[in-house]
Amino acid sequence: MQTERTLVIVGVGLIGGSVAAAARKAMPELRIVGIGRSPQRLQAAVDQGLLDAWHLQAAVGQWSDDAFGLVCLPVDQITAAAKQLLQAGCSTVTDAGSVKEPICSLLQNEARFVGSHPIAGSEQSGFEHACADLFRQRVCVVCGDPNQSPSTARTAAFWRQLGMVVRFMNPAEHDRVLARTSHLPHMLASVAAACVSDSELEFTGTGFRDTTRIAAGSAEIWSSILLQNRAGCLNAIAAAGDLLDQFRQAIETGNSQRLTEIWNTAATRRRRLDQTQT
Amino acid sequence: MQTERTLVIVGVGLIGGSVAAAARKAMPELRIVGIGRSPQRLQAAVDQGLLDAWHLQAAVGQWSDDAFGLVCLPVDQITAAAKQLLQAGCSTVTDAGSVKEPICSLLQNEARFVGSHPIAGSEQSGFEHACADLFRQRVCVVCGDPNQSPSTARTAAFWRQLGMVVRFMNPAEHDRVLARTSHLPHMLASVAAACVSDSELEFTGTGFRDTTRIAAGSAEIWSSILLQNRAGCLNAIAAAGDLLDQFRQAIETGNSQRLTEIWNTAATRRRRLDQTQT
Repeated sequence: MQTERTLVIVGVGLIGGSVAAAARKAMPELRIVGIGRSPQRLQAAVDQGLLDAWHLQAAVGQWSDDAFGLVCLPVDQITAAAKQLLQAGCSTVTDAGSVKEPICSLLQNEARFVGSHPIAGSEQSGFEHACADLFRQRVCVVCGDPNQSPSTARTAAFWRQLGMVVRFMNPAEHDRVLARTSHLPHMLASVAAACVSDSELEFTGTGFRDTTRIAAGSAEIWSSILLQNRAGCLNAIAAAGDLLDQFRQAIETGNSQRLTEIWNTAATRRRRLDQTQT
Repeated sequence: MQTERTLVIVGVGLIGGSVAAAARKAMPELRIVGIGRSPQRLQAAVDQGLLDAWHLQAAVGQWSDDAFGLVCLPVDQITAAAKQLLQAGCSTVTDAGSVKEPICSLLQNEARFVGSHPIAGSEQSGFEHACADLFRQRVCVVCGDPNQSPSTARTAAFWRQLGMVVRFMNPAEHDRVLARTSHLPHMLASVAAACVSDSELEFTGTGFRDTTRIAAGSAEIWSSILLQNRAGCLNAIAAAGDLLDQFRQAIETGNSQRLTEIWNTAATRRRRLDQTQT
């Protein structure tokens, strides 16, 4: 397995910082360079031991051709930053965005760019919360075919070195699946939170707390993700609307058997998740 | 404050068992009697130190008039069990059900019955998971006016002795509020879980896991709760459908500003919960 020599990370927040921490642990010889907008923040990440050096995004410089580039920015900023890294000479560039289709199509002529989505995160932000084990045994989607593209194979190897399980998918398939596994749950959590008024908050229990936790995420990051996965989100919303309507009908008609069936379909699926992940 | 001498609990599962554990801790002199259907289970709860004695539900016996009765059964079994405790001589009887209107209206001529809802729980079941601190600093809704009804005042005092914060509400108001703070989130969690196929489960992250946790609850218990709070649930479903439609419209029209507003309304509310409870 190829071990990287230089890793260039654009965006040293929770994800970028955690990649740095995980890469430092897995590949002690690796030189890690951070790129961002705030000299103070970047220097603090150096001081914390996450980075070896930093550059401002406005002055990325030129990289030797073995550098592996990773963009950890909000989805609407990924394409421009990836192009910048490619121009600066990185031999392979990938990203960590939650949406893949719009990014991969804008960069489809760049054989050195590979879309990635490490499915790991936290509602926290900032490299101060970086965690070297954030990616361990989690799934990372890598777009493309490792047998056809050396960049895809190299990207997959990188994530595997951080302990991730790699699954190959095309960008459209990724966005369709993630609409249901991530983007819809975020919207439903947001809906659940919005339906309770401030004065009613004291009548919530741990169930409400868990179900709505991800609704506290950043509006900028999430509206950007939802808008970049328009088709996937609209399909998922339609599916959710149908299921909500099934609840309505069963409750309206007092159909206990039907309600139990609807509940059990979801409960069985959810219990399977506990069985597979623990 | 009056300290109870005898507590009779019908249904010694997670909630009944936790009340026994909490009451044992708060009122060491209290005699705790469990009523249920399985001699083996009831004896095991005695052996675990939760109960002092037990009776089968078919042979409840007769209680001295200072006994305080508590029904911890699924909502569709509460009314019958409460009547049984009243006939058996308990001087005050309350319950722990998640729905209040149907139960309180069937028992409205019983001045000794008071509806309660301790808002605390877990997705686990069985007295083996009983926790003496389950109720500490959590809210308990008690129906009625403590200044008008000695039974209401006594019930409130009981929950306070377990460390709960008591709020008085009428049954209809309780059901309307809990439809949004609890019953709707359970349905939305169920919808989120049902929208993901088994083969897609590996592409879920911790967000999906948290949002759908309560979807794994018991179908019998939850279909019974939803059907007993028909009006509240139908209103809450309509409100959720409207919000989901706002997401759809903003995404369909690519309205980033509107999407950010929708998100922020919910996010602000959810963050307030963290501020008030931690």
